[in-house]
Amino acid sequence: MYVLFQILDFQRALAVFRILDVGIQEDLIKQLPPHQLIQILNDLPPDDRTSLLSELPSNVVKDLIKQLNPEERKVTLSLLGYPEESVGRLMTPDYIDVEQDWTVEQVLTYIRDYGKSSETIDVIYVTDANGALIDDVRIRDFLLVDPKTTRVSDLIDGRFISLHVNDDQKETMQVFQMNNRVALPVVDDKNILLGIVTIDDVLWVAEEEYTEDIQMIGGTEALDDSYLEVSIFHLYKRRIVWLIVLFFGELLTITAMSNFEDQIAKVVMLATFIPLIISSGGNSGSQAATLIIQAMALDEISVRDWWRIMRREIISGLTLGLTLCTISFVVITCWHWFSPAFGIHYLRIAAVVGFSLIGVVLWGTLMGSMLPLLLKRLGADPAASSTPFVATLVDVTGLLIYFSFAILFLKGVLL
Amino acid sequence: MYVLFQILDFQRALAVFRILDVGIQEDLIKQLPPHQLIQILNDLPPDDRTSLLSELPSNVVKDLIKQLNPEERKVTLSLLGYPEESVGRLMTPDYIDVEQDWTVEQVLTYIRDYGKSSETIDVIYVTDANGALIDDVRIRDFLLVDPKTTRVSDLIDGRFISLHVNDDQKETMQVFQMNNRVALPVVDDKNILLGIVTIDDVLWVAEEEYTEDIQMIGGTEALDDSYLEVSIFHLYKRRIVWLIVLFFGELLTITAMSNFEDQIAKVVMLATFIPLIISSGGNSGSQAATLIIQAMALDEISVRDWWRIMRREIISGLTLGLTLCTISFVVITCWHWFSPAFGIHYLRIAAVVGFSLIGVVLWGTLMGSMLPLLLKRLGADPAASSTPFVATLVDVTGLLIYFSFAILFLKGVLL
Repeated sequence: MYVLFQILDFQRALAVFRILDVGIQEDLIKQLPPHQLIQILNDLPPDDRTSLLSELPSNVVKDLIKQLNPEERKVTLSLLGYPEESVGRLMTPDYIDVEQDWTVEQVLTYIRDYGKSSETIDVIYVTDANGALIDDVRIRDFLLVDPKTTRVSDLIDGRFISLHVNDDQKETMQVFQMNNRVALPVVDDKNILLGIVTIDDVLWVAEEEYTEDIQMIGGTEALDDSYLEVSIFHLYKRRIVWLIVLFFGELLTITAMSNFEDQIAKVVMLATFIPLIISSGGNSGSQAATLIIQAMALDEISVRDWWRIMRREIISGLTLGLTLCTISFVVITCWHWFSPAFGIHYLRIAAVVGFSLIGVVLWGTLMGSMLPLLLKRLGADPAASSTPFVATLVDVTGLLIYFSFAILFLKGVLL
Repeated sequence: MYVLFQILDFQRALAVFRILDVGIQEDLIKQLPPHQLIQILNDLPPDDRTSLLSELPSNVVKDLIKQLNPEERKVTLSLLGYPEESVGRLMTPDYIDVEQDWTVEQVLTYIRDYGKSSETIDVIYVTDANGALIDDVRIRDFLLVDPKTTRVSDLIDGRFISLHVNDDQKETMQVFQMNNRVALPVVDDKNILLGIVTIDDVLWVAEEEYTEDIQMIGGTEALDDSYLEVSIFHLYKRRIVWLIVLFFGELLTITAMSNFEDQIAKVVMLATFIPLIISSGGNSGSQAATLIIQAMALDEISVRDWWRIMRREIISGLTLGLTLCTISFVVITCWHWFSPAFGIHYLRIAAVVGFSLIGVVLWGTLMGSMLPLLLKRLGADPAASSTPFVATLVDVTGLLIYFSFAILFLKGVLL
């Protein structure tokens, strides 16, 4: 990768550098001679520089910022003052703002003189003498009118959408989707325009958010970098925590089952159905959990809808369970015709398995759907109710349901 | 919702209509008086109209298209000719194209006259007499030069990025991310410019793709609409297929376990560890599968990396398994001090559990990581190797591993 910077001219190399993964950027930085490194950092757009700096160890950052020229340093440091995951970290101060008493011709001349350093000129911002945002005007609106006779004040309608500097980055995606904009202004509490966020940065945020969600649903903590970039030790750390939590959860199944050792001793066959029963509960729970987590991520449902969701999931759980119950009756009956493994009481066995399936599927569905809502209500990330987590919760209760039905249907016959 | 169209003026109502879910749009369409419906359809941008029409039943679509004015009908029909999920379905033909011998002043006048119906004027397209794409020029480049003396040909460098009309929509997101554009031109095999795709449409595609992936990872087929919009029967259909497939997969665990009924009959305690063992395998498999699926979705890894991935996962699986093995030794030993449930051979029991954990975690990790790669190699969607699917596969083999270690360590002692 280093060779790149030696054979390409600087602007070209910079363009390549900007789209590299942060991991590779870091490696490059360590290899580059200092004078070239400073040139790169100075020429990076402030938002890209901030995201690079926030990934580097803090002592490396300090050394690097010292090497920026004074103006660039000020910009970078002010961007770094906002909390991670906030809109402040995403914004760039390279935009064009104009005053409302200018003519369109003045605006176009101003763009011609100062537009080169702006991240986008697709939207122009109108501010007052204090720097407070009055409106945003799309460049098309300037081009569609007569430049000599029209003033900026003729084009503004005061209806603009802005982001607050402390807003969560996650929510910007929906604001962009709903409003058909390529850039949005960022303001502080006093409506002072601080910077803009461009839609291409939001695409990256969206990708990162979804990646985090998918990794959490799969039961690992989110990786810091791409799969092949992170060290094996990092992979281990991000996975072992949940594996240990789930392991201790599963220890409860041992306690649960040790209550039924007598029953298993009498009817060993009961043990053979355990994986089938608890997996069916886990599977239906995983389905419900991912449906609800994703619907919440898309704002299709909120915690207030819990009762509507619960009603839907009770009906879904019952019908799904009934279907598996029917299948298990058919399978056990057919199985009995070919080989009498289940003995003369095969219909009672089928009843134990079938009714347990209705119970665990219904229970799994309810747990899977309600847990993400509960986590959200408690202020946690709903995606933490990962599929392995739901499956483990359902395992313990699934065993209790199963052995209760076993005692109910087999008491006095086999037990 | 219907009231909306009665109380708002038409343009405002249209703006609201555009951002509604397709399900609600359909309901509205059925309720609207015909003259208002035709007005809406005629005024929708072609790309939004296409996405609405492709969701409606085809006989409803036919009736509706008849009611469009001839020009709009032609546009809509030509958009509908491209396969679903293709770039052709996403594009709009409302763009501005200019010729290379025009002066910038001519271009700006042309924009003033024809720019109103264009979806974006942030990028202007340069075509030759046949309509073939020569270059795209950002509007800023026109504004930064002297309009009288500069010609379009002075601004072009022939380096443009275009999408092919049959490209997969999924891939457009990465093209936008990498190239910092708000719109991209769409061409056919002969490089004829057919339309443009704007970045806001890509945000919706990205959201849909991720939703599909997350639902598949959770073991359901993707829903057609938002969770509360679809019927309960639809919810049932999308979940039952995988539940039945997994159920039949789990039937194999019965076959596997029936081979070990003698062992369970002799040492009933063996049954109590089954949920712990198979869940640990399932959990580690789920983790590996989601990490690999997501890394593939982000193009961080490809099938060709399988050997590097396998090496990483073997090391990860072994270290994760060793950790759980250590914990289980500690837990069983402590447990033994407080209550002698495991008998005098508790260390042998611990060995069975501990070594089985190493085996199933390693096996789960390998299955979880290799299955998505295998599915991709076979041309299927890697996300189909859902966490429940991996867990079910690992259940059967996990039982075999467990009972093999049981026989190895307990033969002649308890068995």
